Amino acid sequence: MKIIELHESVTASNDRDADEIRKKMKEQGVLLINLMSSPGSGKTVLLSATIQALKDKYKIGVMEADIESDVDARHIEALGAESIQVHTDGMCHMDAGMTEEALHNMKEKNDVIFLENVGNLICPAEFDTGAGKNVMILSVPEGDDKPLKYPLMFQKSDVLIISKIDTMTYFDFNLERCQKYARELNPDIAIFPLSAKTEEGMAEWTDWLESTLKEWRK
Amino acid sequence: MKIIELHESVTASNDRDADEIRKKMKEQGVLLINLMSSPGSGKTVLLSATIQALKDKYKIGVMEADIESDVDARHIEALGAESIQVHTDGMCHMDAGMTEEALHNMKEKNDVIFLENVGNLICPAEFDTGAGKNVMILSVPEGDDKPLKYPLMFQKSDVLIISKIDTMTYFDFNLERCQKYARELNPDIAIFPLSAKTEEGMAEWTDWLESTLKEWRK
Repeated sequence: MKIIELHESVTASNDRDADEIRKKMKEQGVLLINLMSSPGSGKTVLLSATIQALKDKYKIGVMEADIESDVDARHIEALGAESIQVHTDGMCHMDAGMTEEALHNMKEKNDVIFLENVGNLICPAEFDTGAGKNVMILSVPEGDDKPLKYPLMFQKSDVLIISKIDTMTYFDFNLERCQKYARELNPDIAIFPLSAKTEEGMAEWTDWLESTLKEWRK
Repeated sequence: MKIIELHESVTASNDRDADEIRKKMKEQGVLLINLMSSPGSGKTVLLSATIQALKDKYKIGVMEADIESDVDARHIEALGAESIQVHTDGMCHMDAGMTEEALHNMKEKNDVIFLENVGNLICPAEFDTGAGKNVMILSVPEGDDKPLKYPLMFQKSDVLIISKIDTMTYFDFNLERCQKYARELNPDIAIFPLSAKTEEGMAEWTDWLESTLKEWRK
């Protein structure tokens, strides 16, 4: 497994670089998904369950962006998926240049590549990585008021996954209220409440992934 | 309740400014505590429980730093504590200049002032705010591996509060392992596992707060 040390791109033209990555990935028929969330919302567990569910049909690769450590990448690699670890040199987000450098280190012919962005709800929302779709996770223990506090993240995401719904009875989380807040910020956002643990809601999410990949390759 | 719009300090001398704030607060006998965590780890709930426990003995003020919204500040204000909302103009952390500006807007004679920093485990660790003590919260649902992923936050904190321990049976969280990881990074860190909901462990935390305030005023 590779560990790559990245530094912030000097370029001020992040959006143009991101558009180029998107165009190139579309030509190659590879769907790059930028996965964003707080620490501990269950990004790696969701990815593991997604890989398990789809691995007979598609090749899925994962680029794990972290400030330090490689615990997540080792976990994904154990599932037989291609996985690289990207270190961001203390940066709290990935930008297009960093994403491109990471993509150059992916060697398999993957159908879908997940970029597991650095864990926070702020900085990653500000930088276009060139991904075809932005997916964010909000876990039930974090609370249903997070759209009010981190609106940009909800505005920039194509999909909101509400994770750990098996713990709903344990926390004061109002699913309807959370969905309402999110849709006020972003009427087009697709919302998938799910539990990677009990598998409730997983099929809706993997169906979305499959149909989005087909659409991407048209 | 005030809402203050802040912008990053232009000064490159953040550390010097922070030392000046610390000196001034010590002269005034006011303990400023920089409270850091991920979104949804329970900062506001912990502050509410702390204010409830100590309000007959001490005046506690709260400066809530957020990118947007004022939900937390309104919640604290309802407890009768002085509370101001600080907006960080999209910034993912507070620095010393921003903290000083916020402090100027606190009008009561508080014994302890909490700065509830912007919710993430990365950027706030990089900037000295001038606080007398740095306290971080890690909630059980976030997972026991977080010291491996966000080492700087654990290194910079005087106290680690492990919150939501009433949910321990629900999550795969190994308290001993988490404490071991944290102490490897920071042998001096004081660790308080607690639940603001059941009040388990709360007395150890408020005892620490009281004795630290006494020490601060010597």
